[in-house]
Amino acid sequence: MRSLRIALAQMNSTVGDLEGNVSKILHSVKKAKTAGADIVVFPELAITGYPPEDLLLKTRFIEDNLRALKKVQRYVDDITAVVGFVDRKDDIYNAAAVLCKKRLIGVYHKMYLPNYGVFDEYRYFQAGTRCPIFRIGTTWIGVNICEDMWYPEGPLRTQALAGAEIIININASPYRIGKGKVRLDMLSTRATDNTVIIASLNTVGGQDELVFDGHSLIVDQNGSVIARGKQFEEDLIIADLKLEGILMKKLHAPLQRQEALRHDKGAVEKIVVPAAKASGKKTQIPADLSLREKPVLAPFEEIYRALVLGTADYVRKNGFKGVVIGLSGGIDSSLVATIAVDALGKANVTGLFMPSPYTSGESSEDTYELARNLGITVREIPITGVFQSYLDTLKKHFKGSPADVTEENLQARIRGNMLMSFSNKFGWLVLTTGNKSEMSVGYATLYGDMAGGFAVIKDVPKTMVYELCAWRNSNAGKTVIPKRIFSKEPSAELRPGQKDTDTLPSYEVLDPLLKAYIEDDRDFDETGSPGCNARCIRNIIGMVDKSEYKRRQSPPGIKITQRAFGRDRRFPITNKYRGF
Amino acid sequence: MRSLRIALAQMNSTVGDLEGNVSKILHSVKKAKTAGADIVVFPELAITGYPPEDLLLKTRFIEDNLRALKKVQRYVDDITAVVGFVDRKDDIYNAAAVLCKKRLIGVYHKMYLPNYGVFDEYRYFQAGTRCPIFRIGTTWIGVNICEDMWYPEGPLRTQALAGAEIIININASPYRIGKGKVRLDMLSTRATDNTVIIASLNTVGGQDELVFDGHSLIVDQNGSVIARGKQFEEDLIIADLKLEGILMKKLHAPLQRQEALRHDKGAVEKIVVPAAKASGKKTQIPADLSLREKPVLAPFEEIYRALVLGTADYVRKNGFKGVVIGLSGGIDSSLVATIAVDALGKANVTGLFMPSPYTSGESSEDTYELARNLGITVREIPITGVFQSYLDTLKKHFKGSPADVTEENLQARIRGNMLMSFSNKFGWLVLTTGNKSEMSVGYATLYGDMAGGFAVIKDVPKTMVYELCAWRNSNAGKTVIPKRIFSKEPSAELRPGQKDTDTLPSYEVLDPLLKAYIEDDRDFDETGSPGCNARCIRNIIGMVDKSEYKRRQSPPGIKITQRAFGRDRRFPITNKYRGF
Repeated sequence: MRSLRIALAQMNSTVGDLEGNVSKILHSVKKAKTAGADIVVFPELAITGYPPEDLLLKTRFIEDNLRALKKVQRYVDDITAVVGFVDRKDDIYNAAAVLCKKRLIGVYHKMYLPNYGVFDEYRYFQAGTRCPIFRIGTTWIGVNICEDMWYPEGPLRTQALAGAEIIININASPYRIGKGKVRLDMLSTRATDNTVIIASLNTVGGQDELVFDGHSLIVDQNGSVIARGKQFEEDLIIADLKLEGILMKKLHAPLQRQEALRHDKGAVEKIVVPAAKASGKKTQIPADLSLREKPVLAPFEEIYRALVLGTADYVRKNGFKGVVIGLSGGIDSSLVATIAVDALGKANVTGLFMPSPYTSGESSEDTYELARNLGITVREIPITGVFQSYLDTLKKHFKGSPADVTEENLQARIRGNMLMSFSNKFGWLVLTTGNKSEMSVGYATLYGDMAGGFAVIKDVPKTMVYELCAWRNSNAGKTVIPKRIFSKEPSAELRPGQKDTDTLPSYEVLDPLLKAYIEDDRDFDETGSPGCNARCIRNIIGMVDKSEYKRRQSPPGIKITQRAFGRDRRFPITNKYRGF
Repeated sequence: MRSLRIALAQMNSTVGDLEGNVSKILHSVKKAKTAGADIVVFPELAITGYPPEDLLLKTRFIEDNLRALKKVQRYVDDITAVVGFVDRKDDIYNAAAVLCKKRLIGVYHKMYLPNYGVFDEYRYFQAGTRCPIFRIGTTWIGVNICEDMWYPEGPLRTQALAGAEIIININASPYRIGKGKVRLDMLSTRATDNTVIIASLNTVGGQDELVFDGHSLIVDQNGSVIARGKQFEEDLIIADLKLEGILMKKLHAPLQRQEALRHDKGAVEKIVVPAAKASGKKTQIPADLSLREKPVLAPFEEIYRALVLGTADYVRKNGFKGVVIGLSGGIDSSLVATIAVDALGKANVTGLFMPSPYTSGESSEDTYELARNLGITVREIPITGVFQSYLDTLKKHFKGSPADVTEENLQARIRGNMLMSFSNKFGWLVLTTGNKSEMSVGYATLYGDMAGGFAVIKDVPKTMVYELCAWRNSNAGKTVIPKRIFSKEPSAELRPGQKDTDTLPSYEVLDPLLKAYIEDDRDFDETGSPGCNARCIRNIIGMVDKSEYKRRQSPPGIKITQRAFGRDRRFPITNKYRGF
C-alpha cells in the first residue's frame, strides 16, 4: 500500500534569530530522518520568525535569510524538506522552499497575502502567481502557505485538480479563542471538497502581542483528523499518510473527476523531487514520536496556556532573567503573578506590595497569602512618605483645588516609579496587571499601573480573569489564589471606600457591551441593554474612545480575543466620531 | 477663448467630525460660487477626514458618511463639486463624487491604494477599476485620487488619452521635508507627458502623527505652475484654466496624438455634467481670492510651520485648552515651548522648572530668560524633597548597590509625575520635549521625560533642533531662545558633571548615522564612518534596536522626515537580528 511518512516540525522560531532558527531546523531534520520520514516540514517564515515586520525592508536581512536557507539546503540530503523563508526574485515573496539532495528543487510563493487584523503582508510582499506541484516517488504534493488555504478557489484547488494527493500547508497563524475549531472545520471541508490529505503545520511561540498555538493538524480525504500537534509547545508530529484511500474516494464520489476534466492541466508546473536514498520508512514510528491522541485543551486551560507561553517567550526572547509585579491583593495582580510563576518559575518572580493609607488590611493579608501559595518573595514598600512629600511640594500650586483624580493618579504613579526602580536596579521586567475591561474604558493610570514592559492580561476581560483564576485553582486541586480575592468587590483603593462600580456598571454587564463595541464594531440603538440603558452605553463608548491615547502608550500584551488593542485595532486618537 | 474657472478648497477636516467637515464644505461651495467658479474641489476623504483608520470597519460610520455626502449634494446646485468620501457599493472605496444640480453625476474609485510607510489602504478599501471622464460644457475632465497620480500608466494616462484636458487630483498627502519639490516635479512631468492641466488639491492640518501641508498646485500642459495654495493653512485657490493651449500643444508636439490612436476609446465611460446656470464667470476673480504668488517657504520655516500646525491641531482637535511643558534650560524644551507659544498663544502655555541638586545655576537662569522672552508663566517645583523620600523608602531594598541609572531615572520620573499632576489638576496637555536623536538611541526615560500626550519634536534630529532655534531667533529679529542655550554642552543633569557625549558621539556625527540606519535601512561595513568606527556604529545600532520597547510606549509626535517612529517604522520589539 502506497504511503508517505511525514514529519511536521512545530517549532518556536525567534524573529531575527537566523542562526538560532537554522540550528533548530537542522536538529529537526536529523530527528525526522532518524524516524524514517520521507519529508519534513517547517512553518511559514521559519528562517526569519514571524512577523519580521520592517526588518523585511532591509536588503541585508533578506540576503542573510537566503544565506540561512542555503545552510539548511546543504544539510538536507536523503529526505525532502519544506522550509518557510523570504524569497528574493524580481521582488520579495513569503515563500516555501522544497529541498532535497542538497539542492533547491522548487519554491512556492504565497498567493493570498493577509492585510487585516494584525497582518500587514501587502506592506512587504509581492503575491505569488504560480502553484507548482512536486512528485516524491509516485506521489504528487502541493505546497502552499497559511492564508492560501482560506480560499476555496485558491492554490489548493488548482494543486488538487492537477493531481496532488497531499497538500502541505505551512502557517504562522496566531492564536485567538476558538480559532482551533474554525481552522479544523475549514481544513476538513477543503480536504473533503478536494479529496486530498492536508498536513497543516503551524508555528508555536510568543512574539510581542502574538502567541502562536501550534496545534498543527493532519486531516485525511474524508476530513477526519489523523494527527494533531501539541498546543503551545514545540512538537515533531510524525505520521504515515496512506494514499490508496484517495483514489478509492475519487472513484466512489466522482465530483472532483468531473471538475478535473475541465481543468487546464498545462497551467501547473510539475516538479520531480529526486529520489532520496531509501530511509527507514518501513520500520515502526519510534514510540516517543508516535501519535499522541491527546484531547484538545479545555477552553480556560487553552487561554491560560496561551498567556503562560506568551509571557514566557517575551521574557526569555528579550533576555530578562526575572520579573517584578505590583501586588495589590486584587484578582488581576493575583492572576498575573500566578501566570508569571507558571511561565518562569517562582524564583524568577518578585512581588512588590505598596500600601497607602487607603489600602485595607484584607489587601495585605490576601497578598501575603497568595505569595505564600506561590512561593514567591514579596517586598513591602509603603508609599505614604513619598505621597506626602509630593503633596507638600505641590500644596501651594494646588491651593484651593479639592482632592480629585490627581491625587489618585499620584499614588498609582509612585507605585509605577517604585516598580521601575526595581526594574532598573535588578534588571527585572515589570509585568503590568491591567485587564481588557480596564484598558477599554481607561480605568487605569498612565505611567502608574500601566507602567511596565509587558501587559500579560491586557486582552482578558475582567469576568474572564475570575474564570481563569477559578480554573487555575481547580486545576491545581488546591487554593492558589485565595478565596477572599474572588469574593471582595473590585477597588483601586486610591481613596476611602472606592469601588469600581462607583463609575462603571458591574463587569457582568460591562464586558458583553465592550465586546460588542470593540471586537464586533456593533451598532447600538436607543433601547440600551439589560443593566445599561442608552445613556449608560453612550457613556461607556465615550470612555472607550477617549482612552485611545492611553492605550497608544500601553505596553504590548497577548492577543487572545477576536480583536485586541494594539496592531489589531488601529484607531485614531484625534477622532470626533460619536457613532451613538 | 475657452476657459474654466476652478476653485480648490484646501480645507482642514477633522477625522470623524462629519458634521463639522460638511459645514466647512458648504461654506466653501458658497464662496466658490460667489467667485464665479465653474467647479469647486475638496480633498481626498474630505467628508471623513484622513486617515479614519479602523473607523472604516464600522458600517454605521460608512452610512453616516454617505448621509453627510447627501447633505452636500443637496446644496450643490449651479456649480460642479468634486468631493472626497467613502463609497459603498459591493465593497467600500476611497472615492470622489462629482455633484451638480443637486445630483450625484458620477463617482471615481481610487485605483492605486498605498500600503507602505504610514499608509494602510489595502486594510480598508477595494481598488477601483474604472476611470470615467466628465464633460463640463465643452471640456472633458478626469478625476483621480492621490496615489493614482504617481503611476505614469495610471488613470491619468487613460483619462488624458480619452480626451481629458484637465485632471483633478485630490489628495491627503502627508508632509515630509522636501516632499513639495518631489510632488511638483512629478506633477510637471505628468502634465507635460499627457498634455493636460493638472489641478492637484491637498488637504491641510494635523492628525495625530501626520501633518498635511496643503501646498496645492495647478500646473499647465507645459509643467509650469499656474497657482499654488498656502502651506500649512486653509486656502481657497481660484484660477482660470485656459484650454486653447492644450490643442495647440498637441498640434506642435504630437506624441500624444499617436498614442491616442492606439487607445481603446470605448473603455472609458464618458459622463456629461448638466449645464449649470451661467454663473459670474465672466467677471474678474475677486481681489481677495486672486492668485498669491507667494514664494515657497524656506526650508527651516517650512519644518517649523509643520511643527506648529501639528501641535496646534492636536491640542485643538482633542479639546485641550492649554499645555504644560517641563523646562530644563536646554535647547529641546526651549524649542518645544517656543513652538507651543506660536501654536497656542502664550496664555495657554505653562512651564514647570523642576530643579534637583544636579541642576546648574545656568539652567535656572536660562529657563527664566526664555520664559520672559516668550511671556509665559513658569512654576518652580524642586524635586529634591520627593527624591530624598524615594531614596529613604528604597534604601533598605537597594542596600549594597551603588547609585546607577536607577537614581537618574527616579528623578526623571518624579518630574514626569509632577507634570502629569498639573495635567490632571488643570486639564492641560503635557508636551514632551525629546528629539529624534534621543528617541533613536533610547536616551530618554520612559514615564519620565517621555511622559506626556504629544511629542512635538520626536521626529526632529538634535542637530536640526539647533537649526530650527537659530532660524526662529533670526526670523524674530531678536533673541527668543537665549544665546547661552545654544552654546552649552547638552546634558540631562541627572548626576554631577553628566554630558550627553559621555555615552554618545557628538550629534554632528550621530545624526547622519541615525538617518542612514533608521530612515534609509542602510548597511554598514567594517570601515565605520568619520568620527565613529565600526565598534561605535555597532554600539549605536544596538542602542536603537534595544530601545524599540520605549518607543512603542511613546506619545505620538509629528512626522517630518522620510521615516518617523510610530506607524511609519514598524519594528518588532522581540528581535534578535543584528545586521552588523
